[in-house]
Amino acid sequence: MKSRAAVALAAGQPLELTEIDVEGPRAGEVLVRIAATSVCHTDAFTLSGADPEGNFPAVLGHEGAGVVQEVGPGVTSVRPGDHVIPLYTAECGKCKFCLSGKTNLCGAVRATQGQGVMPDGTSRFSLDGKMLHHYMGCSTFSEYTVLPEVSLAVVSKEAPLDKICLLGCGVTTGIGAVLNTAKVEPGATVAVFGLGAIGLAVIQGAVMAKASRIIAIDVNPDKFTLAKQFGATEFVNPKDHTDPIQQVIVEKTDGGVDYSFECIGNVNVMRSALECCHKGWGQSVIIGVAGAGEEISTRPFQLVTGRVWKGSAFGGVKGRTELPGYVERYMNGEINIDDFITHDLPFEQINEAFELLHAGKSIRSVLHY
Amino acid sequence: MKSRAAVALAAGQPLELTEIDVEGPRAGEVLVRIAATSVCHTDAFTLSGADPEGNFPAVLGHEGAGVVQEVGPGVTSVRPGDHVIPLYTAECGKCKFCLSGKTNLCGAVRATQGQGVMPDGTSRFSLDGKMLHHYMGCSTFSEYTVLPEVSLAVVSKEAPLDKICLLGCGVTTGIGAVLNTAKVEPGATVAVFGLGAIGLAVIQGAVMAKASRIIAIDVNPDKFTLAKQFGATEFVNPKDHTDPIQQVIVEKTDGGVDYSFECIGNVNVMRSALECCHKGWGQSVIIGVAGAGEEISTRPFQLVTGRVWKGSAFGGVKGRTELPGYVERYMNGEINIDDFITHDLPFEQINEAFELLHAGKSIRSVLHY
Repeated sequence: MKSRAAVALAAGQPLELTEIDVEGPRAGEVLVRIAATSVCHTDAFTLSGADPEGNFPAVLGHEGAGVVQEVGPGVTSVRPGDHVIPLYTAECGKCKFCLSGKTNLCGAVRATQGQGVMPDGTSRFSLDGKMLHHYMGCSTFSEYTVLPEVSLAVVSKEAPLDKICLLGCGVTTGIGAVLNTAKVEPGATVAVFGLGAIGLAVIQGAVMAKASRIIAIDVNPDKFTLAKQFGATEFVNPKDHTDPIQQVIVEKTDGGVDYSFECIGNVNVMRSALECCHKGWGQSVIIGVAGAGEEISTRPFQLVTGRVWKGSAFGGVKGRTELPGYVERYMNGEINIDDFITHDLPFEQINEAFELLHAGKSIRSVLHY
Repeated sequence: MKSRAAVALAAGQPLELTEIDVEGPRAGEVLVRIAATSVCHTDAFTLSGADPEGNFPAVLGHEGAGVVQEVGPGVTSVRPGDHVIPLYTAECGKCKFCLSGKTNLCGAVRATQGQGVMPDGTSRFSLDGKMLHHYMGCSTFSEYTVLPEVSLAVVSKEAPLDKICLLGCGVTTGIGAVLNTAKVEPGATVAVFGLGAIGLAVIQGAVMAKASRIIAIDVNPDKFTLAKQFGATEFVNPKDHTDPIQQVIVEKTDGGVDYSFECIGNVNVMRSALECCHKGWGQSVIIGVAGAGEEISTRPFQLVTGRVWKGSAFGGVKGRTELPGYVERYMNGEINIDDFITHDLPFEQINEAFELLHAGKSIRSVLHY
């Protein structure tokens, strides 16, 4: 079948709006019509060419929501008409990772997903007879896309797809990092480095966890307005201080915060985030994705004196099990998604959405097919 | 009063066996007659001059056991005749740290302890009228020493002081890192880097925690005999492999271990210890003390994919609360201390104990006053 799509033909170029060929689902696969998708920094990172694992040409996009059109042989947990959120972190329920009870990093489709193909090693996408790669197991920049059954969370049909698409990455990642990875407890103090969508979602998670102080940190003070709206209680611009930012936070909090979150992908900020944590118990969670080959460092004394350094992917959330609950919480008003959406655009303006993201003018642009 | 002591007059010199003057205990302080002390790498580190916080001249020593002789005004929890283990990690029960329930790093006497003086800012030791510094709040290299009340764990009088002195540092640190800091669960896989006293105690802790595989790693294969005796199940000498040691361990364990422990103080080994942990849940605990200014580093991806980097000081053990139980477990045969003691020497041979430690010929030498 034919499908409208925005294709990344090569690194560093704008996406090509065109019509691609999409093959039907094979065994264990599902054809989904995407209703809405957003653009995340990870898409931009790969498109830039800086991602050493980026495959081209490819159909990017991983933050979307849609409706199941057709299922391949053997698919039992998803049926046509189901509303779904594509998962770049699958949940098979059977692998060593899923069975461990300790992580959401399912291993079922990981290897082929990284190579930009379906689990059988082939692609369902082509353009003028030439194969296009899948991306993060989702490829939401094609109206019709094919995913493994284990990469789809079935959610309530009552929920607006053009809002809950954000639960496919940013909002869930930030909230989950607070609730699942850090397990912030009521009364705790929290520092959030970087106030993009992830940072704002962390703030939201910290409010849900009843943190007592939520310190929002960004070099762009324009971000503080929205951070305040989401519930941040204090605002720090590192540019206003000559001391290292970790020292500023330690002084502000009588020894450091209980939890910190790095939501940028800057290895120097990751160090600051660790070192602004309180001796004895402070935990720092890395969420941002650093550039290829970059390394974090600190003095081991920071850890020996009780700080903990960890990371979070997709907020530690098991997509098939937990995302339906996130959608319910959105419907109940417990999770705010709407305020992340600064722009609504027709799909054809997808390159404009990338420009808004690069310029720091959008938090999330939702593209409507 | 006069006291036999081994004094560190200056960095890099052997200890001077002499008689020093010890003042009686002031308010909140306790005079203890040390019955036995051991020598730990931390003493050697400070004596070498590499410790930027080392104070000279000083009475070193922090792994001992003794009997209370006299208490100063206001002391209520300790009385003459009590058997005690000196604590370089105090437990006041009242400070922010003690009340947090999250750490054993009591803040009560930390600042003055680091400066080598008692909490009132003065020393109880002198030699020929010249002040000598205290060390780690313990100074067990003097037969008579003065400690803050909060720095003493009262233990059973049934226990032999020349064995349980090892619970003052190494044995407790290793076992505690497994049981308190990592919380190793039955069936888990464990890698131990460095097979000195701490590493052997980690192995013992892993056996107590019912770990299924305990991989002992050292560049000196002579250490494997004792490691096996303590319960290690596999032995790896990095020198036998051309691949990085983390890769060797990952291959041996189908993806990495559940828990790893660095018991050396080498920042490169700390990285290996982290990176040999299993994706999704592996935790690495730093116990070794690195050289001044040295830094650990890794790719943040290691953490984002679920590994946790932490550290442990005194095994996360709250001394006053928990050490009496460690002593009981030794008396019940649940904790093996005796096999750590490779040498018993009269106190006067303390410099020989240092030499044995440097030459890797001893695990622990116990010095008897």
